[in-house]
Amino acid sequence: MSNESAEDRLIARHFAPLAQHPGALGLFDDAAAIAPPPGCDLVLKADAIVGQVHFFADDPPGKIAQKALRVNLSDLAAKGAKPLGFLLSLALPAEISDDWLAAFAGGLGADVTQYECPLLGGDTDRTPGPVTVAIAAFGSLPHGTMVRRSGAQAGDAVVATGSIGDAALGLLLRKQRELASRWGLDGVMSDHLIDRYLLPQPRNAIAQVLRSFASAAMDVSDGLAGDLAKLCRASGVSAKIDVPRVPLSMAARAALRSDPSLIEPILTGGDDYEILATVQASKLPAFRTAASSLGVELSEIGEILAADDGPRFVGRDGQPVKFARQSFSHF
Amino acid sequence: MSNESAEDRLIARHFAPLAQHPGALGLFDDAAAIAPPPGCDLVLKADAIVGQVHFFADDPPGKIAQKALRVNLSDLAAKGAKPLGFLLSLALPAEISDDWLAAFAGGLGADVTQYECPLLGGDTDRTPGPVTVAIAAFGSLPHGTMVRRSGAQAGDAVVATGSIGDAALGLLLRKQRELASRWGLDGVMSDHLIDRYLLPQPRNAIAQVLRSFASAAMDVSDGLAGDLAKLCRASGVSAKIDVPRVPLSMAARAALRSDPSLIEPILTGGDDYEILATVQASKLPAFRTAASSLGVELSEIGEILAADDGPRFVGRDGQPVKFARQSFSHF
Repeated sequence: MSNESAEDRLIARHFAPLAQHPGALGLFDDAAAIAPPPGCDLVLKADAIVGQVHFFADDPPGKIAQKALRVNLSDLAAKGAKPLGFLLSLALPAEISDDWLAAFAGGLGADVTQYECPLLGGDTDRTPGPVTVAIAAFGSLPHGTMVRRSGAQAGDAVVATGSIGDAALGLLLRKQRELASRWGLDGVMSDHLIDRYLLPQPRNAIAQVLRSFASAAMDVSDGLAGDLAKLCRASGVSAKIDVPRVPLSMAARAALRSDPSLIEPILTGGDDYEILATVQASKLPAFRTAASSLGVELSEIGEILAADDGPRFVGRDGQPVKFARQSFSHF
Repeated sequence: MSNESAEDRLIARHFAPLAQHPGALGLFDDAAAIAPPPGCDLVLKADAIVGQVHFFADDPPGKIAQKALRVNLSDLAAKGAKPLGFLLSLALPAEISDDWLAAFAGGLGADVTQYECPLLGGDTDRTPGPVTVAIAAFGSLPHGTMVRRSGAQAGDAVVATGSIGDAALGLLLRKQRELASRWGLDGVMSDHLIDRYLLPQPRNAIAQVLRSFASAAMDVSDGLAGDLAKLCRASGVSAKIDVPRVPLSMAARAALRSDPSLIEPILTGGDDYEILATVQASKLPAFRTAASSLGVELSEIGEILAADDGPRFVGRDGQPVKFARQSFSHF
């Protein structure tokens, strides 16, 4: 209509199709209204990604959108929650085109379907800065069952999903393509690592399994070493990690063979979006089988200890592996 | 602790004190978990404010924080919802100091208390752009009772809370201080208008009253004219507004006497954070009394009509008031 604003048209064209949940009211009201599932707790998470910090300005817009949603879905997964929906605050520089927005919304829409996580509302704003995508995601789970960081017990096994370190190596490759040949990587391996940085693969498939088995869990977003330290601190425990048992992709193994110093970015670099969990040793086989049946491999990488002096990483030679910095932080 | 990151310390120092709700887990986990009130719907809203767009870089940091929260609280109020809590995604340029953050958190903490709306979680990020504050706020209300934009009926009275246009005039003054003398404003009147731009005063006090009386409502954030057009479109109706009955502050009346063309920014300029509502004419006296007892004045400004041709604004002379642009939009 003639008195619709440009923002209204932008929302109606690109984002209303992603808001099929009746509570989203087609994005035509001030707010969404949803009836939470009875007997459930809500799990609430907000995480933003910023251009030039968390992604490159020339990354494919659909992948930027998916990364923004998936970093939040990864937290819901690690807490054992099923996604209910999300809110999107999108700040856009003036030079963003309608084609860019269409591609952004297209990628987001694919994930709305894949993760059954509808867009419930949000806003768009102009910014003199880079594209900034702030998402708040909501999940649900049976009352009192959220998997916390604080439940790890001495004697628990420490496990990680998938493979660790790919995204950190992918980011190095993204900045310096010639590293691929120095690391002896072919095109497939190099693309694997870069893709793992570009687009997280959150482990929402095993959210319910985590609730059944894990004593504590978190997603690995700021590097395995730093995130494990946070989990240990929250639980008042320590841990011993056998570095050779940390699961690595073929590409990461090849790179590490060429340059053993890459163990530091692998273990501290971040953007893995895998799940780090602890589990009573007796439950580990059943946990592994349940996760595997959902397509997610678990690797036992160490053990929770009773001390509270922070985790130790031990190499193949039995000597501690030390890091210049343990965790990724923009601050 | 030695292995805490700088971001962890920032959160622990400035934001953990605002997260007293037990479900926030002291901001030490990946996500919050809350048990929603039984029989209630959740009302979900996300709105961001961006430096150089929605506020000035040298605005007091505490007021920036309060504006970011209050623009969301205003939507919850207009929908009839009681605040439950909020998530904060804060993107900060490198030059932001610890003192700035302390003041930001101090202002936010005052509103957490005043509006009984705890911080439940969020994240902090670096940005090469301006300070960007993205908030997602949650409220609750009895199932099925959210006040929508779409319920206005022909014959309903149109009402507005408080006063309209102050913030738009305040923004003009903020950019061009010498307008104060041209408009014949003393210091008190000038400060009133500037304060109304700086810090919204959302009408959460009457959220429950709105649920009891209003057939439709929304908050006025993009200008009365444009927001009324949205409400009419959502309801499939039109409206006739008597411009002389639109409630103005003493300061706005004084400015308008000096420069009658200011009626355009007053009615279209935005940032009012008042509530625009419709109500069956027979319920209007009780609605007004209930709101007034909570300290919020309602003004009847017009009537809903059966047509769907968009609202008309009529001046003292009976002639239509036309606007160059009806609504504020950054796009």
